[in-house]
Amino acid sequence: MGGTGNIGEGLARRICLSGKYDVIIGSRDAGKARCAADGVMSCLAENSCTGTSCTGATNADVCDCDIIIMSLPFDKLASTIETIGKSAFENKIVVSLINPMIRNPKERYFLPDHPVDGSAALALQKLLPVSAKICTGFNNVAAGKWMELNEELDYSVVVCGDDLTAKRIVMDLVASVSKLQPLDGGPLAISGIIESITPLVITLALNNGLKDVGVYFR
Amino acid sequence: MGGTGNIGEGLARRICLSGKYDVIIGSRDAGKARCAADGVMSCLAENSCTGTSCTGATNADVCDCDIIIMSLPFDKLASTIETIGKSAFENKIVVSLINPMIRNPKERYFLPDHPVDGSAALALQKLLPVSAKICTGFNNVAAGKWMELNEELDYSVVVCGDDLTAKRIVMDLVASVSKLQPLDGGPLAISGIIESITPLVITLALNNGLKDVGVYFR
Repeated sequence: MGGTGNIGEGLARRICLSGKYDVIIGSRDAGKARCAADGVMSCLAENSCTGTSCTGATNADVCDCDIIIMSLPFDKLASTIETIGKSAFENKIVVSLINPMIRNPKERYFLPDHPVDGSAALALQKLLPVSAKICTGFNNVAAGKWMELNEELDYSVVVCGDDLTAKRIVMDLVASVSKLQPLDGGPLAISGIIESITPLVITLALNNGLKDVGVYFR
Repeated sequence: MGGTGNIGEGLARRICLSGKYDVIIGSRDAGKARCAADGVMSCLAENSCTGTSCTGATNADVCDCDIIIMSLPFDKLASTIETIGKSAFENKIVVSLINPMIRNPKERYFLPDHPVDGSAALALQKLLPVSAKICTGFNNVAAGKWMELNEELDYSVVVCGDDLTAKRIVMDLVASVSKLQPLDGGPLAISGIIESITPLVITLALNNGLKDVGVYFR
C-alpha cells in the first residue's frame, strides 16, 4: 500500500527482482498503481527476470496478499485502513516502514514525531484487528537508494514484532532484497527506536555533506 | 568523571594513546581514580607512548580540564554535580556519553529510559550553567570494546551540541581515538535519538547471537 511513491515502487522492483515474491502495488488510484506495476514489469523484463510478476490495484486488493507492506505517510494511515475496513487485515502479516518525523528547516535537522502510542508501528497495531501480526521492516534504508537498481543494498534492517513466526517471514523477505541484512530487533515495543533512526540518518546526511546515509549494525 | 568504570577507564586509555590529550580520571574516591590512572600509565608504557599522561583525582578536580567527559550512571548525575558545585562547569565543554535505559529481562530487550527533558544530555544541560557547552560523544560504542586495546574501533560516533566550536573540538577528540569516525549530528535536540541507539544495539546483540554490536552510518 502506498506503492506509487519512490520508496514503494523501488521496494516493489527489488522484491520482484528477488524472483521469490509476486507483488501487488496498491494505491487509492488503481490506475496509478497499474502504471507503477507496468514500470516494475518492464524492469523485470530488462533484467530477464521471469519468475515473478507485479500487478497494480486498489489498496483494498493488496489485502489479498500474505504480507502487506504499509508504505504510506503516517497521517494517511488511519483513513486508509478505515476506507478498506479493518477486517481485511485479519491474520495478515503487516509490515510498517513508516517513520513519522518533523523537520526544522532553519537548523537543518529532523526529529522523530512519535504518535502517542510511541511509534507508527504501535499506532498501526491499535488500528488493526488483534489477529494482525505487525512488524517493522525496511525503515532505515536511504529513500534515494531504492530506485538505484544497479546498486546493491547491504544495509542492516532491524525487524521487530511480537509474533515470532511473522517476524521470521519478514526477515526472510528482507534477506531476499539485494544484500540487505535482517536483524531480529525483538518485540514491537522497540519500533520507536528504529523509526527514530531515519530522521537521524537524514540529519547526518545534511550536516556532513553525505548522500543517502544508511545504517549498519556490526 | 566516572572514569573508574570499564567504559571510563578504556576511554581514558584510548584517549591517552592518541598522544594528543592528557587525561585526569575523576571518581568520588580519589584513591580509586589514582589506581585507574596507574593502570593507564602502565598501558602507555607498554605501548611506548610517552607524549601524554594520566592522573587520578576527585570528580571536582576534573573540572580543571578543558573537556569534561561525563561517564556516570544517569541517576548519579545530579548528586555529582551538586557535590562539585555547578559553577565549576562555567564555560567548560562537557561531553555526555550517558544512555539511560531499562531492561526487560524476561523478554531480553532494552528500551531507552529518557528523562522528562528528552535525553540525559538535555537533562545535563539543565543542571549546568548556561555557559557550559554540552555535547554528546562516544555514546554507542560497544562497552566491551573500550578495553580491548589490541582492537581498532572504527565505529561512527555522532556528536551533537548547540555550540559549533565545542562540537568541532569534541569531533576532533573522537577522531583521535583509534579509528572512530565522528559525524556532526546537529543540535543537542538530537541527543535522545543517539542515546536510544545503545539499548537497541544491546538488544540486537542479545537477539542475534552477536557480541559487542556497534553502529556505522554510511
